[in-house]
Amino acid sequence: MRRIMDTLSRLENTIAARLAAGDPGASYVAQLHARGLPVIARKLGEEAVEAIVAALSGSREELVGEAADVLFHLLVMLGEQGVPLDDVLAELDRREGTSGIDEKASRSA
Amino acid sequence: MRRIMDTLSRLENTIAARLAAGDPGASYVAQLHARGLPVIARKLGEEAVEAIVAALSGSREELVGEAADVLFHLLVMLGEQGVPLDDVLAELDRREGTSGIDEKASRSA
Amino acid sequence: MRRIMDTLSRLENTIAARLAAGDPGASYVAQLHARGLPVIARKLGEEAVEAIVAALSGSREELVGEAADVLFHLLVMLGEQGVPLDDVLAELDRREGTSGIDEKASRSA
Amino acid sequence: MRRIMDTLSRLENTIAARLAAGDPGASYVAQLHARGLPVIARKLGEEAVEAIVAALSGSREELVGEAADVLFHLLVMLGEQGVPLDDVLAELDRREGTSGIDEKASRSA
Repeated sequence: MRRIMDTLSRLENTIAARLAAGDPGASYVAQLHARGLPVIARKLGEEAVEAIVAALSGSREELVGEAADVLFHLLVMLGEQGVPLDDVLAELDRREGTSGIDEKASRSA
Repeated sequence: MRRIMDTLSRLENTIAARLAAGDPGASYVAQLHARGLPVIARKLGEEAVEAIVAALSGSREELVGEAADVLFHLLVMLGEQGVPLDDVLAELDRREGTSGIDEKASRSA
Repeated sequence: MRRIMDTLSRLENTIAARLAAGDPGASYVAQLHARGLPVIARKLGEEAVEAIVAALSGSREELVGEAADVLFHLLVMLGEQGVPLDDVLAELDRREGTSGIDEKASRSA
Repeated sequence: MRRIMDTLSRLENTIAARLAAGDPGASYVAQLHARGLPVIARKLGEEAVEAIVAALSGSREELVGEAADVLFHLLVMLGEQGVPLDDVLAELDRREGTSGIDEKASRSA
């Protein structure tokens, strides 16, 4: 539990710093930023595809790795758009608070 | 920061309880579980597509909602496969610990 | 072979007519057009996800249905952008003509 | 119109020959075949993501290239599963024949 707070908060901060750094050579995140939002969005989509293929046909280890890639690139995309992870978590809280997780069911089950 | 810990841990627990509940009518998560892993994987893929389209063409509000959907269905897929979120966060820690976020660059930039 | 010509040409023409029709109530394609390119792109992405899940976990019949959905929505997206299918086929011809299908390998294998 | 028949039929045949060839070094398709269906499915998903990002944010030329990649990898995935393109086109014909393209609307608009 402690790790959830530590890892994602630290990662969000690290990504924010690297997005702001300016020098594309400095890090993978700075490189993605230099290439722009469409490339970042594409990467997230590709990692999600890899995660679902890993879940359906890969090892547990592959699934862990691909899920990490999805989380990482989701944070990069949110960071690039200036959306704090906290806003996304607040939305998850809101859904559970009002009508529960089941609220999703009425929208798209 | 507190919310990151609270929201995701609680959500992971809630999802685990609903996956185990057995009654498909009881919740959206139980319903997904009854339909099986391919349907869960499909939902994650679809939500990721919606998130990237929202990032490229939608409002900030849409992006927040779709990112929440991605997180939610990623947790459902991990839960369905018996993979704790903590394993995924440990992998993110490991990457940053060894060669940093930049480790990703050598793999797939 | 005859069917490839007949089906896709006719479908492309039908889609073009419905995209141009204006009345969103008139057809599914006109409806997609009214909702705009982001929704059309999203549908293509979702159908592609469904096709890969069908290939990995579904029946042959599901794969045929999802592949049809991918082709259909690809034609809608191309039509919406004013790109003739013929331009895409010319690109496939060009690749095979110059360096063969293997050209792809150098780009992204 | 002639091209639709020529290009896709020839491409389907070329892919079938390369899938059957056995030597992974011989072609990109043989390589994909050697890596297996999950990798082929992943490639199709990734190309679809690239096509929708190109439609939303790229040039017309990028869209043409990515749409070609989608068609190409869809044919590889169908070929890998032993599904003739003709079966997919028959399904598109069937939909138009019975209730028209609009049939799709009732399923998933």
